[in-house]
Amino acid sequence: MDQQIKNKNTYPLLSTIDSPADLRKLPQNRLKDLCEEIRRFLIETLAENPGHFASSMGAVEFTVALHYVFDTPYDRIVWDVGHQAYGHKLITGRRDRFHTNRKLGGLSGFPSPTESPYDTFVAGHASNSISAALGMAVATQLNDDTPRRKVIAVIGDASISGGLAFEGLNNAANTPNDLIIVLNDNNMSIDTNVGSLHRYLGKIHTSKLYNAVRYRTFGWLKKIGLLNDRRKDFILRFNNSLKSLIGKRQNMFEGLNVRYFGPIDGHDIDMLVDAFRDIRDLRGPRIIHLRTIKGKGMPAAEKDPSSWHAPGKFDPVSGVRLSSHKAEDTPKFQDVFGETLLELARTNDKITGITAAMSSGTSISIMQKEMPDRVFDVGISEGHAVTFAAGLAKEGQLPYVAIYSSFLQRAYDHIIHDVAILRLKVAFCIDRAGIVGEDGVTHHGAFDLAYMRSVPGMTIAAPRDERALRDIMYTVQLPDAIDGPIAIRYPRGNGSMTDWHTDMHKVEIGRGEKLRDGKHVTVITLGTIASQASQAIGIADKESGVNAAHYDAAFLKPLDQNMMHEIAAANLPIVTVEDASVNGGLGSAVAEWLADNNISLPVTRLGLPSEEFVQHGTVPQLQEICGIDPKSIAEAIIKAAKA
Amino acid sequence: MDQQIKNKNTYPLLSTIDSPADLRKLPQNRLKDLCEEIRRFLIETLAENPGHFASSMGAVEFTVALHYVFDTPYDRIVWDVGHQAYGHKLITGRRDRFHTNRKLGGLSGFPSPTESPYDTFVAGHASNSISAALGMAVATQLNDDTPRRKVIAVIGDASISGGLAFEGLNNAANTPNDLIIVLNDNNMSIDTNVGSLHRYLGKIHTSKLYNAVRYRTFGWLKKIGLLNDRRKDFILRFNNSLKSLIGKRQNMFEGLNVRYFGPIDGHDIDMLVDAFRDIRDLRGPRIIHLRTIKGKGMPAAEKDPSSWHAPGKFDPVSGVRLSSHKAEDTPKFQDVFGETLLELARTNDKITGITAAMSSGTSISIMQKEMPDRVFDVGISEGHAVTFAAGLAKEGQLPYVAIYSSFLQRAYDHIIHDVAILRLKVAFCIDRAGIVGEDGVTHHGAFDLAYMRSVPGMTIAAPRDERALRDIMYTVQLPDAIDGPIAIRYPRGNGSMTDWHTDMHKVEIGRGEKLRDGKHVTVITLGTIASQASQAIGIADKESGVNAAHYDAAFLKPLDQNMMHEIAAANLPIVTVEDASVNGGLGSAVAEWLADNNISLPVTRLGLPSEEFVQHGTVPQLQEICGIDPKSIAEAIIKAAKA
Repeated sequence: MDQQIKNKNTYPLLSTIDSPADLRKLPQNRLKDLCEEIRRFLIETLAENPGHFASSMGAVEFTVALHYVFDTPYDRIVWDVGHQAYGHKLITGRRDRFHTNRKLGGLSGFPSPTESPYDTFVAGHASNSISAALGMAVATQLNDDTPRRKVIAVIGDASISGGLAFEGLNNAANTPNDLIIVLNDNNMSIDTNVGSLHRYLGKIHTSKLYNAVRYRTFGWLKKIGLLNDRRKDFILRFNNSLKSLIGKRQNMFEGLNVRYFGPIDGHDIDMLVDAFRDIRDLRGPRIIHLRTIKGKGMPAAEKDPSSWHAPGKFDPVSGVRLSSHKAEDTPKFQDVFGETLLELARTNDKITGITAAMSSGTSISIMQKEMPDRVFDVGISEGHAVTFAAGLAKEGQLPYVAIYSSFLQRAYDHIIHDVAILRLKVAFCIDRAGIVGEDGVTHHGAFDLAYMRSVPGMTIAAPRDERALRDIMYTVQLPDAIDGPIAIRYPRGNGSMTDWHTDMHKVEIGRGEKLRDGKHVTVITLGTIASQASQAIGIADKESGVNAAHYDAAFLKPLDQNMMHEIAAANLPIVTVEDASVNGGLGSAVAEWLADNNISLPVTRLGLPSEEFVQHGTVPQLQEICGIDPKSIAEAIIKAAKA
Repeated sequence: MDQQIKNKNTYPLLSTIDSPADLRKLPQNRLKDLCEEIRRFLIETLAENPGHFASSMGAVEFTVALHYVFDTPYDRIVWDVGHQAYGHKLITGRRDRFHTNRKLGGLSGFPSPTESPYDTFVAGHASNSISAALGMAVATQLNDDTPRRKVIAVIGDASISGGLAFEGLNNAANTPNDLIIVLNDNNMSIDTNVGSLHRYLGKIHTSKLYNAVRYRTFGWLKKIGLLNDRRKDFILRFNNSLKSLIGKRQNMFEGLNVRYFGPIDGHDIDMLVDAFRDIRDLRGPRIIHLRTIKGKGMPAAEKDPSSWHAPGKFDPVSGVRLSSHKAEDTPKFQDVFGETLLELARTNDKITGITAAMSSGTSISIMQKEMPDRVFDVGISEGHAVTFAAGLAKEGQLPYVAIYSSFLQRAYDHIIHDVAILRLKVAFCIDRAGIVGEDGVTHHGAFDLAYMRSVPGMTIAAPRDERALRDIMYTVQLPDAIDGPIAIRYPRGNGSMTDWHTDMHKVEIGRGEKLRDGKHVTVITLGTIASQASQAIGIADKESGVNAAHYDAAFLKPLDQNMMHEIAAANLPIVTVEDASVNGGLGSAVAEWLADNNISLPVTRLGLPSEEFVQHGTVPQLQEICGIDPKSIAEAIIKAAKA
C-alpha cells in the first residue's frame, strides 16, 4: 500500500495504468510523459532490486506504443529473450509488485504465461518468438477468431541472428497469416546506416499514403485492368531494388517474402504509434524495423550498454554502479575458466575459444582480449558454435566451447552428429550448470548431465572446486590425455578458494576421490555440490551421530569403477547428491551400476526434481526447495542411516 | 575381380579413375563422357542394390568438376546430407566396392571420414556443411597450411533452409576465410526463375572478364586514385540491385556479405569447370549457385524425383520400379500413423499435423492430401517445427509433430523450453525410433528415450504394435486424457498386423501390461521389440526350460508403479529390452525404480550400446550385433535365470 501511495505521487500517469485498457484511454500526447515516468520507475526500482536494465530502458516507447495501438491481451505480444519486457510488466498490472522482480515467489525476470495473460509465451532462450508467434497467428486463422487476433513477435537484432529465428522467418511467408514482427535493433549489427534518409524511408513506407498507393490504388488499377500481376510485381521489385541500392545492402527480409518497413526511430512515440496503426491491419507477414538505443535515458548505460545489461545495484542519481565485489572475494568460476584458458592458450597454439554471444558472460573475453584471432564469438547460434568447433577440431585445432548449460540444449544434435560420431576432441565448457538463481526456469542448467550422458564416447567431468577446474582444463589439452569430446560443467557464481591460481596438474580421467571415511552412510557427490554435502555430513554427525563417508565422483562418465567397487564393498546405504536433474545423472548412473553389477544397496538420489521445473529465487533458497542444501542433505543422510 | 573386368569393358573411362588424381589427367573434353559413364554405372548398380538415386544423378557433373578443379583430398569437399555423393564415392577409389553400398561391412550410404580421406566430415543430418566447412576453412588459416587449403561446402537448396545453415552463412563473413559454398539447387525452392537470362548472368558473373573487372581493374583504378571505396561500393551495389531487379527477388546471400555467383547450369560440365576455376582463388567467402535436375539422365526419375529419391530396385532399361510390396503385407508404421491421424483429424477439428520436410517419409502426406490447410511442412527446420507447434498449442490447437527420432535431436531445447515449461499439449510422433538399418550411424533413433525422459512432465509411450499406436494416438486427443506433452515412438518399417485398422480405444496413461506369466525370469520390454523378446522367451523355454514372464511397459514415463510392484513381488531376475541406447531409457528407469524403492533384484539391461554408435546393415543384422535379436535375448534370459 505504501508503495502504491508513493507511486501515485511520484508517477502521476503510471500510477493510473493498471492495465493497457487504462493506457488506451490516455490522449496520445500524454504518452511521452508516461514513457518518461516508466524510465524513472525502472531506474529507481532497479537501483535497489538488481535485474536486467539497459534492454528495458531501450524498449520503453515501442512497448507503450504496442499496447496503445493493439488490443492486448486479446492481441498477442510475444517477447523474445524477454529481459526487455520490464516496461511491459509495469503497464500490465504488475507495477506495484515490480520490486519483487526475480525474487523467490515474486515476479519472474522474464515474461511468464503463468504470471500474466499479457505474457503470451515463454521467453528466455533467444530466437523463439517468430516461430511461436507464427504458430499463434496460424492458430487464430484455424480457430477463426473474430475479430482476427493480431500476433506480434518482438525480437532483437541479436536474437534474429539465431537459426531458429531464420527458420521462423523462412516459414512466415509459407502459410496464410498476418504475423507482425517488430525488430528491435539496438546495436547496429544488422544495418550500419543511420540518418535522415532512413528516417525518411521509414516514414514514407509506413505512411498511410504509401499503403494507400501500394494496396488500394494497386487494387483499383488492377480492377479496371490497368495493372496485372506482372506489372505490379515489377513495380514492387523496383521499389525494393531502389531501396537496397540506397540502403547500401540487400534486404534479406524481402528476399524471404516478408514485407519490410523501416528502419524508424524507436524512441519517437508518435511515429511509433502511427507506424503500428498503419501496419496493424495489413495482411500477410511483415516486419517493422526499429532503431533503439540500449540503456536510453541513462547516460552511463547508453555509453556502456554491455556493463549495464544487468548492472547490479547502482546509485539512481549519479548512475554509479555499486560493486559488491571485495578484493579478498573468491573468484567466479567463469573467471577461473577464462584466466586458465588464456594461460593454456599461451603455451598450446592449437587451442581456440568459442562462445555464442556470451563473451563476457563466460569470461572467454579474457582470452579474446589477448588473442582476438583465436576466439570466435559466433553470436546467438549455439548449434553453429558446436559444428564450427567440430570443423576446427577435424583439422587439428582444439576448441574450448564455452556455453551456458541451458543454452547448450540448442546444440544437442550437433554434439552427437558433428562431434561425437567422429570422436572429435572438443572441450565443452558448460558454464551455469545447475541452479542459477534469479534468472529462473529457463536458465537453470538442469539437464546437461542427462543429455550428455547418453552421448557415446563423451567424457563428463564436474570439478568440485576452482583448482579441479583448472586441472581438468589443463589435462584436456595434453596429448593423448583423452580421446574424443569432453564436457566440463561448473556453476554460476563464486567458488570457494582465494588461492586458486596455482600450478596445474594432470588428472586421471574417470578417477573419483574419497574425501572422507565413514561408517554409516556413503555420500557420493559430483561437482561443487560437494561443499554442501560436506557441510551436511558435519550436521548429520553433530545432530544424530551419523558418520558418513564422502566420495567425489569427479567424473560422471566414465564412472570410477574402483571407487564404485570400494563403495559397494563398504555395504552402506548410499546417498547421491548432484546439482542437476535427478533423472539421468549421477544418481541414475549409480543405480545402473549397482543393477549391472548385481549389487543391492539402498540409494537415495538427491538433485533437481525430475518432473517439475525449478523457478526463480536465490541459489540457497532454490537448493533448499530442491533438497540439496546442507540441511536437507543432512536429513537425507540421517534417514538413510536409519532406514 | 570379375567386377573390375566387367567395369573395364563397360566403363572405359570410369574404370581408369582410381582416384581424383587419375581424373585430373583426363583432357577436359573427355569429362562429358565420364559423366555419362558415371550415370550408367549408378543406374546399373542401384537397380540391383537399392539406395538413394535421384540426388546423385543430379550431382554428377559438378562432382566431377569439383574433383577436376580442386586438389582433393588436400582440398576439402564437405557434403551436406550426403545422399548425393555416390558419384563422389565412385571417383574416389570406391568404384569396385560400390555394390556393397549400405550393406553390413560395406560402404556407408553417406560420406564417412572413417571410410575415406575424401569424405571430410559426417553427413546425414541436413544443414551442417557450412558450419563444419567454415571451421575447416578457419583452421587452415590458423594452421597456416601452405598452400592454403581450399574448403568447399556442397549444400542443397532444401538443406540451406535449415537454421544451422543460416547460422553458418551468417558467420561466414565474420572471420577471415576463403570458404566456397556450392549451392546445389535442384527443385526451385529458392528461385523460380529459369532461362537464358539467368544463364547469361551466371556466365558473366563467373567469367574471367567479370572477375578481372571486379577485382583487378577495381584495384588498378583504386591505385591510381580514380576509385575510392565509396564509389566501388556504389558500383557493386548497383550491380546487385540490378540483378535483384531482373532476378525478381533480393539476393539474401549478398545481404549476408557472402559473394554470390550464378545461377549457372549444373549439368554443363565445361561451364562448371570454368566457373570453379574462376572462383577457386578468390578471397573471402563466396557462394556459387548451380541449377540441377534431380534424377538427371533417367527420364522417369526426372519426372518424379520424389519417388525416385530412394526408389528401391528397378529395371535399369525401362526404368520401371520393382515393388516388393505384396497385397497381404503388414503396413508400415508410418502409414498406420498417417491413416490414423487423418481419421482423428476428421472428427477433431483442433488437430493439426506438422512435419519437417518429411511429408511422405512420415506419411503425414495422407492427411495433407485431404486437409492441406491443417498440415504444415516447415521444411528442414525441426526446431521451428516444435516451437511453431508450441505456438499452435498455446492457442488451443492440438499439433501432432511427426519427426524422425534422430532428426528430433535438433529440437531438444525447443521441446524443453517452448513446450514442456508450459506443459503444452503437443504430440511428438517419433518415427524411425530405434535401429533403422541401412541408413546407418547418423539415422538410428538411439537417443530419444534418454533425451525425452529427462524432460519434466513429458509422457513417453512406445506402442508395441499397430493397434497400440492407434490407441495412444486416439487417446491423446481425448479431452483431459493427458496433461502436457507426449512422445510416441515407433520404428521404421512394417508392423506385424494385417488387421490393424480396427476401432480405437482409450488407453490408460502410464499403464503397462503383463503379456505372460513366468517363474524364472521377468522380461520387461518397451515398444515393438516386444516381438523379438516374445520369440526369445519361446527359445529360452524350448532350449533350456527357462520360463520367463513378459511385461510390456508401454510407457517409459510414467513408469507403471503397479506393474513394477508386481514385478518386484515376483522376486525374479529382470531382463529389460529396448530398441534404444541402454543408457537412459527403460533399463535405467527400472534400475532407478529398484534403487528408489530399496528393492534388490539383478537387472540385465539390453539395448543399443551406450558407448558406441551403431553402423549400417539390415535391421536384423544390427539387432544381432546389439544383442537385441531373439537369439541374443534368449541367451540373456537363460543367463539371468542361471545366475
